[in-house]
Amino acid sequence: MVNQVQRGDGSLRSCKSDSSGLSNSGGESSKESSRCSTPVLEADRSDRLRDKMRRRTESGDRWFSLEFFPPRTASGAVNLISRFDRMSAGGPLFIDITWHPAGDPGSDKETSSMMIASTAINYCGLESILHLTCCNQTKEKITGYLAKAKHLGLKNIMALRGDPVGADWEEEEEGFNYATDLVKHIRSEFEDYFDICVAGYPTGHPEAESYEEDLRHLKEKVDAGADFIITQLFFRADTFLKFLDDCRAIGITCPILPGIFPIQGYQSLRQLVKLSKLEIPEEITRVIEPIKDNDAAIRNYGVQQAVEMCRVLLDSGKVPGLHFYTLNREVAIMEVLRQLGLWIEDPRRSLPWAVSAHPKRKVEDVRPIFWASRPKSYIYRTQDWDEFPNGRWGNSSSPAFGELNDYYLFYLKSKSTKDALLQMWGAELMNEESVYEVFTCYITAQPNRNGHKVMCLPWNDEPLAPETNLLKDELEKVNKRGVLTINSQPNINGKPSADPIAGWGPAGGYVFQKAYLEFFTSSENVTALLEVLKKYEPRVNYHIVNVHGRNLTNAPDMQPNAVTWGIFPGREIVQPTVVDPDSFMYWKDEAFALWIEQWAKLYEDESPSRMIIKYIHDNYFLVNLVDNDFPLESCLWQVIDDMFKMLDAPPGFETQSPF
Amino acid sequence: MVNQVQRGDGSLRSCKSDSSGLSNSGGESSKESSRCSTPVLEADRSDRLRDKMRRRTESGDRWFSLEFFPPRTASGAVNLISRFDRMSAGGPLFIDITWHPAGDPGSDKETSSMMIASTAINYCGLESILHLTCCNQTKEKITGYLAKAKHLGLKNIMALRGDPVGADWEEEEEGFNYATDLVKHIRSEFEDYFDICVAGYPTGHPEAESYEEDLRHLKEKVDAGADFIITQLFFRADTFLKFLDDCRAIGITCPILPGIFPIQGYQSLRQLVKLSKLEIPEEITRVIEPIKDNDAAIRNYGVQQAVEMCRVLLDSGKVPGLHFYTLNREVAIMEVLRQLGLWIEDPRRSLPWAVSAHPKRKVEDVRPIFWASRPKSYIYRTQDWDEFPNGRWGNSSSPAFGELNDYYLFYLKSKSTKDALLQMWGAELMNEESVYEVFTCYITAQPNRNGHKVMCLPWNDEPLAPETNLLKDELEKVNKRGVLTINSQPNINGKPSADPIAGWGPAGGYVFQKAYLEFFTSSENVTALLEVLKKYEPRVNYHIVNVHGRNLTNAPDMQPNAVTWGIFPGREIVQPTVVDPDSFMYWKDEAFALWIEQWAKLYEDESPSRMIIKYIHDNYFLVNLVDNDFPLESCLWQVIDDMFKMLDAPPGFETQSPF
Repeated sequence: MVNQVQRGDGSLRSCKSDSSGLSNSGGESSKESSRCSTPVLEADRSDRLRDKMRRRTESGDRWFSLEFFPPRTASGAVNLISRFDRMSAGGPLFIDITWHPAGDPGSDKETSSMMIASTAINYCGLESILHLTCCNQTKEKITGYLAKAKHLGLKNIMALRGDPVGADWEEEEEGFNYATDLVKHIRSEFEDYFDICVAGYPTGHPEAESYEEDLRHLKEKVDAGADFIITQLFFRADTFLKFLDDCRAIGITCPILPGIFPIQGYQSLRQLVKLSKLEIPEEITRVIEPIKDNDAAIRNYGVQQAVEMCRVLLDSGKVPGLHFYTLNREVAIMEVLRQLGLWIEDPRRSLPWAVSAHPKRKVEDVRPIFWASRPKSYIYRTQDWDEFPNGRWGNSSSPAFGELNDYYLFYLKSKSTKDALLQMWGAELMNEESVYEVFTCYITAQPNRNGHKVMCLPWNDEPLAPETNLLKDELEKVNKRGVLTINSQPNINGKPSADPIAGWGPAGGYVFQKAYLEFFTSSENVTALLEVLKKYEPRVNYHIVNVHGRNLTNAPDMQPNAVTWGIFPGREIVQPTVVDPDSFMYWKDEAFALWIEQWAKLYEDESPSRMIIKYIHDNYFLVNLVDNDFPLESCLWQVIDDMFKMLDAPPGFETQSPF
Repeated sequence: MVNQVQRGDGSLRSCKSDSSGLSNSGGESSKESSRCSTPVLEADRSDRLRDKMRRRTESGDRWFSLEFFPPRTASGAVNLISRFDRMSAGGPLFIDITWHPAGDPGSDKETSSMMIASTAINYCGLESILHLTCCNQTKEKITGYLAKAKHLGLKNIMALRGDPVGADWEEEEEGFNYATDLVKHIRSEFEDYFDICVAGYPTGHPEAESYEEDLRHLKEKVDAGADFIITQLFFRADTFLKFLDDCRAIGITCPILPGIFPIQGYQSLRQLVKLSKLEIPEEITRVIEPIKDNDAAIRNYGVQQAVEMCRVLLDSGKVPGLHFYTLNREVAIMEVLRQLGLWIEDPRRSLPWAVSAHPKRKVEDVRPIFWASRPKSYIYRTQDWDEFPNGRWGNSSSPAFGELNDYYLFYLKSKSTKDALLQMWGAELMNEESVYEVFTCYITAQPNRNGHKVMCLPWNDEPLAPETNLLKDELEKVNKRGVLTINSQPNINGKPSADPIAGWGPAGGYVFQKAYLEFFTSSENVTALLEVLKKYEPRVNYHIVNVHGRNLTNAPDMQPNAVTWGIFPGREIVQPTVVDPDSFMYWKDEAFALWIEQWAKLYEDESPSRMIIKYIHDNYFLVNLVDNDFPLESCLWQVIDDMFKMLDAPPGFETQSPF
């Protein structure tokens, strides 16, 4: 009789250390990488990029990919991450991040290529390729970078020589001379762990002796272990198609992806040509010279030219995917993709929350509801976990969430400037009611008393989600009276999983939710609330906590409570969201801290405005309520209403504070 | 930062070997115990019997317990297990099994005390105490028995001296002289693993020098480490109450449970008195002497006398529970319990299937639907698993189910005699339709053509469950035509969990089901069925298999499909039943084998009847169907109907067999 083999739900596999001899190579850089540093499980390299490409190619399902360069400034980094979120909506197969030695690309700076690529994978859920140049680098240093990349969850490398320091270069004894050397090194040190991409030049590399020589060199790179090729840009479809045929003719069989650069401006085109040593075809020059001062016209033309060229490429039947050089801009690329029909916004989410692409989070499918508006924070605070809940949240032991620190706060700070925030949240607060007004304006999307729309709150960087918008009227009522809501969901009793607002998961299923409400409110309100809640036991579960850690809950045995679930054909139940009493205690630290970090600090020390926010932080409670009776209309609004009635009752009405 | 600790869902803990130095003691008996032999996890001794007693005592919630003796014959064993099932319906806190050295009580025979107690725990879900006598035993032998008991999942021991061989006995050097020695030995070898119970004698042990001496002896036993006391029987409430006060007076503080013996017959009473050396009070003799030839009258009196005495005991406020000597009979005890209001048939099930009481199965809460009518078989075939699915079934690897063998078939054989089965299933079968008739009569509960009701089938040892009875008409229709159903459930769309027929789990929740149908049918039918099923994709999932292992399924990626689930206040989703393609392949071996083992073998070798059953076994397919669209009325009957329509269509209608 064979013993039961470990099941997939919550299986514990020991965390292996990296096998690349990390202690000898780049030790310093690996120690620095504490942020997403849990070693990736060796075995978990299913669903590789090259396999995805193969499947898409076989099914005739074209794709697109996007190339970005690392930002120069911290705010540039924040903007770029937002851009990833927006551009990932169209379904790119992968993105890649370029590597420039002068920019400290392997460091832990928020602007480094390494960190940007890691963020794309871990926080934005994007398959990502990290470029890596090898000239002027020792083998040790390169190995260190690769090990660090692996630690961070990166699985794909574009192996490049790079531009040597100085006009000419000499062959290094201990280093790399050609990209081929780098490819060989990666395969030798990491075997088949990484998918490797190399560069191809449709008209030959500028430094190559001849076009044919460069083709042979390309074949060498591929034979050394590359999985696919991305080409330099070109201006004519047949330039690429000829190159493709020539590659096949000399026996290169891997995928070859054309690099597309839509012309975005006159100067940028001239600059590009200088760097790449390419010639602009006469038919293009003829068009853009006359309009060289009209950037808008050039951009329009650039889009057209790219669309036409791409159509020819796709129609050839030999081009499974298109690779775009974005120069970190989105508008033109998205327009090209839309015209080509490649921008596929699949509104269907597989889960109600955005899935991370880190290999170790592959089976994660249940999270506490508290971080619904702050998924990046959740990923950050759980990055040291060895495994992630699958199926059930479970209750065998308290999870430990990572601390909040400056780095975390950086990546998660508001997209808005300080001035914009003051305009939205009030340059000067008079009293607590001023704060209530801000919340109310956020909910209603009406301008505040200074004529500004409140587009975000410290806990919600985006306006109300469509689902929450359904509850707008009730939310407005309660926020006006100091029930400051930061998270909520309506009850749902078996809507089809394809429902445009509430649906998620595979088609043909049904989704369910328990009504949920989470808000800050004063201790006077809480006293009345607790009295009211007695009448609603056991239908309503509550958890009430303040910044000092006092907490009250009626969660049975402190167990997690399912609040979102779905039933699908041929599958087990999916239960992606829970209200977990233990996690709530970690969440509350973050929720309370945001009053100070994002709001109070907008004001001068000791100013009345700051004092008001601080007062709220110190004295208000954070409350979460769940209505367990999901087939019935939510009773939570009635609970709040009863609370207000009790507060409005004539004096002499006794309520006993539990505190 | 603390790493995530292993979660409760599917956590893998290594299987520890027993710490009692097993290799030195009773090695032979421990090797034999292969049936439920996976060592019990040391840590999992939460919810002990003594804790349950304490909680019930504190809350004033009285209980009852039942004592049985091991059977002498194999069929006696089968009957006793059935009695456990029936008597457990009233909610006993525990049962106990007596130990008699002459009956090979520690062996693997089906009639041994050890095996009976183990079956009670593992298969009947009853908290069980195994008696153990120590005189004339070496310490090694005793340790061996205890280790084996632990391996089998037994957690409670009643430590007794026993009756020494020969009229007098001599103190053994290497052995045990008193029950106290046994108690000390258990604590010394197994520390706190077992709950230990000892015997008390309300009028003093017959061999004691005095009542007071015996009380001191009892205190010694308790001080040596016993957790509670069960007393010898007595005839007057005040006999026990005085004894109780005397125990408390000398400092015995543990629970003391009165042993109740309802008088069941004149001879049995005389026999009992002879063995126990008790005196029958005059008020009892006065009543029973005149009616000593009237067993019915004596039984009635016995029930009355027991009820009155127990009422006095319970009203004293000092008696938290009553212990009944059943002599393996049920009627009188159940009557007494009902009159006392202690027989609490809680129709509410915590899960739709009966939970096992083995400690290692504590977190098990999901099973494949296939064994719904054969839970003991499921427990048997999974007894070697180290851990059991919790939350989700999961799909990381095929589970391995144990083989079918003779032992298994013994315990799971029909309660009916061969003759009764032949009467129900046909002394002589004419053709396949004879078999269809048997199924149909089972479904309708109408007598067969020979006037006998078909009370069971090889796959179902009981008549139709109430829930299945709802589908009776549809089931009758299809069985008549050779769709031989052995398992089914209706769809349910959110019935309250307290629903008397379909409900389970905590109150205040909602239960759901997908419609399910499982049946044997001919290959001609299957050909048509597969054609029909194309129209029902993806709403209907199917799996079709024959005894030779050919199988077809449209289960996406062979994943398990949830077919029963429930939502409860303050809890995560419970999903207790799945249709799992991998498990179905193991189940089918059992399902097909039952044709032969339980039906074909009733007939002579080579007889026509046997050939018919064998033909069905060799040629029919086992089919399971799931209708994923649970909010809608089940389409499965329509599927079967369409199949018949296709079969009834005029000739020339082509259907293509996939085989």
